[in-house]
Amino acid sequence: MIKQYLLAPGPTPIPDEVVRAMAQTMIHHRTPQFSKIFAEAREGLQALFGTKNDVLTLASSGTGAMEAAVSNLFSPGEKVLVVNGGKFGERWQQICQAYGLEVIQLKVEWGKAVKVDVVEKHLKVYPDIQGVLIQASETSTTTLHPVREIAQLTRNGPLLIVDGVTAVGVLPVPMDDWGIDVLVTGSQKALMLPPGLGFVALSDRAWARTEKAKLPRFYLDLKLERKNQQKKTTAFTPAVSLIFGLHASLKMMQEEGLERVYARHERLARATRAAAKALGLDLLAPENPSPATTGVMLPEGMDGEKLLEYLRDRMGITFAEGQDQLKGKIIRIAHVGYIGAFDVLVAIGALEMALKKFGHPVKFGQGAAAAQEILMESLD
Amino acid sequence: MIKQYLLAPGPTPIPDEVVRAMAQTMIHHRTPQFSKIFAEAREGLQALFGTKNDVLTLASSGTGAMEAAVSNLFSPGEKVLVVNGGKFGERWQQICQAYGLEVIQLKVEWGKAVKVDVVEKHLKVYPDIQGVLIQASETSTTTLHPVREIAQLTRNGPLLIVDGVTAVGVLPVPMDDWGIDVLVTGSQKALMLPPGLGFVALSDRAWARTEKAKLPRFYLDLKLERKNQQKKTTAFTPAVSLIFGLHASLKMMQEEGLERVYARHERLARATRAAAKALGLDLLAPENPSPATTGVMLPEGMDGEKLLEYLRDRMGITFAEGQDQLKGKIIRIAHVGYIGAFDVLVAIGALEMALKKFGHPVKFGQGAAAAQEILMESLD
Repeated sequence: MIKQYLLAPGPTPIPDEVVRAMAQTMIHHRTPQFSKIFAEAREGLQALFGTKNDVLTLASSGTGAMEAAVSNLFSPGEKVLVVNGGKFGERWQQICQAYGLEVIQLKVEWGKAVKVDVVEKHLKVYPDIQGVLIQASETSTTTLHPVREIAQLTRNGPLLIVDGVTAVGVLPVPMDDWGIDVLVTGSQKALMLPPGLGFVALSDRAWARTEKAKLPRFYLDLKLERKNQQKKTTAFTPAVSLIFGLHASLKMMQEEGLERVYARHERLARATRAAAKALGLDLLAPENPSPATTGVMLPEGMDGEKLLEYLRDRMGITFAEGQDQLKGKIIRIAHVGYIGAFDVLVAIGALEMALKKFGHPVKFGQGAAAAQEILMESLD
Repeated sequence: MIKQYLLAPGPTPIPDEVVRAMAQTMIHHRTPQFSKIFAEAREGLQALFGTKNDVLTLASSGTGAMEAAVSNLFSPGEKVLVVNGGKFGERWQQICQAYGLEVIQLKVEWGKAVKVDVVEKHLKVYPDIQGVLIQASETSTTTLHPVREIAQLTRNGPLLIVDGVTAVGVLPVPMDDWGIDVLVTGSQKALMLPPGLGFVALSDRAWARTEKAKLPRFYLDLKLERKNQQKKTTAFTPAVSLIFGLHASLKMMQEEGLERVYARHERLARATRAAAKALGLDLLAPENPSPATTGVMLPEGMDGEKLLEYLRDRMGITFAEGQDQLKGKIIRIAHVGYIGAFDVLVAIGALEMALKKFGHPVKFGQGAAAAQEILMESLD
């Protein structure tokens, strides 16, 4: 009997309330019953995105919503700047290239945030850039990019298109206030849902752009979706059970209060980083760490893939691995979504035990103690 | 958002597999479908009880099964010896008295096991004792009684009636082998089910006694139940969903293997005790601790009721309190049923933090480290 602990950056654990909501008997989607739930969820999403505009719900993964953000806003051959500091930056680039855009790539070392002045310089060198595409939180490198500051540069220039997949619901990303033009997220992270829903919201000037954007789209036609979703329905068949779950998870987040949700993520991340440091491990992104996931460098020479396999198969603990050049060298410990203080203690306790098992000298309890000092802050 | 951790000695956490089994569509109980499931569960229960005889399933709590053990075996005015070393010993006494038996009480200090020679002396002083009633694991004091040794004394004498509520499925209690005449348990402990099922099995000589036992019974008439359950049905309406769950939980225990189930409980208990000691706390039952639950003495002057309330309401951790004279002075940390290594780390981490919050000097990680050393044994 090995209990399972899902501590990867998505899918994340699903709360009971959400599981039960999703287990409701199927209803038809062209009914007042569905429309009521959908309309309430739409309001909750607006609060989360910090926008007065529509947040559209798509039956797609986050990547579908990313694609919609490209295909609805640009025309063939237009120039965009892609900040590529990890696997998801790479994904922006792949989508833009698949649609025949001209991509100026701004490569950023993995684990580092893009520098605002470098973005500024690129915008000066290429004054015909129509859009800047970036991650708020680059999940693959556990790094935050300075989206708020970049939005200052793009306010009267190119559209700022932000992948908020491990940011929305984790930290404040108030799109209207900051001046983000397109904000995208998925269901399986802070929203505490299974994968299967993508979300996208557009600023007024982004909506204006959709009128002249000539890239082809059909299933992901945001104008068509907006028309339908404003009438409390969807253009195509919605993922009904997931929307039952969305309704429940947004209610949970409202009850906790968004400020407290953000503070919780920040605290859990800080505790995880403190624990890693107490164990003598380096962080992948020490300067701009994401509050969604902590990347931890493994001791030199340790086989990270074997370690993760051991943690998963023998201890029931699922962390995420490193990708590409980081494969086997790091682990990513997520603390996004339905995660509390004791999940961090489980993560750290398991890490301590697995490291020792793999021959690394560990003083048991040392990581946990550092985490506990910080987790205590939530107790008054 | 406070995640809940149920670490009290019943109800205990329910595994997903069991929850899903219980969520099956209701079926009628007088059908081949029900009989098939019920028959398979009956076999699993025999392995758990270590008996070739029937293990009867009752729609009752454990107390119902305890009452059946009395009302089916004795006649008014008969003399029984009750080992009373806690709240559940007291319950045997209350049941026997409610049915008009003459109770010889053997009081045992809370937290201590009854001494075998004291039982022996009682049996000599009162040669007309017809039954000895005892707990294998006295949940209220987290103490094991020496049932195996006492069974040596009663083998050719009075019936030995054992409350196995926090013992069956936690440690081996092979009733045929040891010579236990009646063994009782409930669903909400090691069986990883909600409360609502009681189980009772009788030795051959106990079954013979039921023929002449004159105490009144109707709903809990074991002879009637045996007649029905041997035909894969029940005398009265069974708790169908709970039996779906029982079928699933027994399957889980078989897959883990009973020897490993017992070893897990023993290891988790040892880890919990080591952690408590590392934190400078005394155990309630240092000599004969139960592997189901660990009783921990709180520091002098600490308000245990407030501490438990704080743990539950602010940290989401449910431990059990002390009862009667131990109220406020101890906590009981359960590790029975669907509990793994990381539940122990959660329990200890939470205890460390709560104790510190309540002004007790705690070095974070010290309890956890002691537990980890022992929990590592399960990892090869």
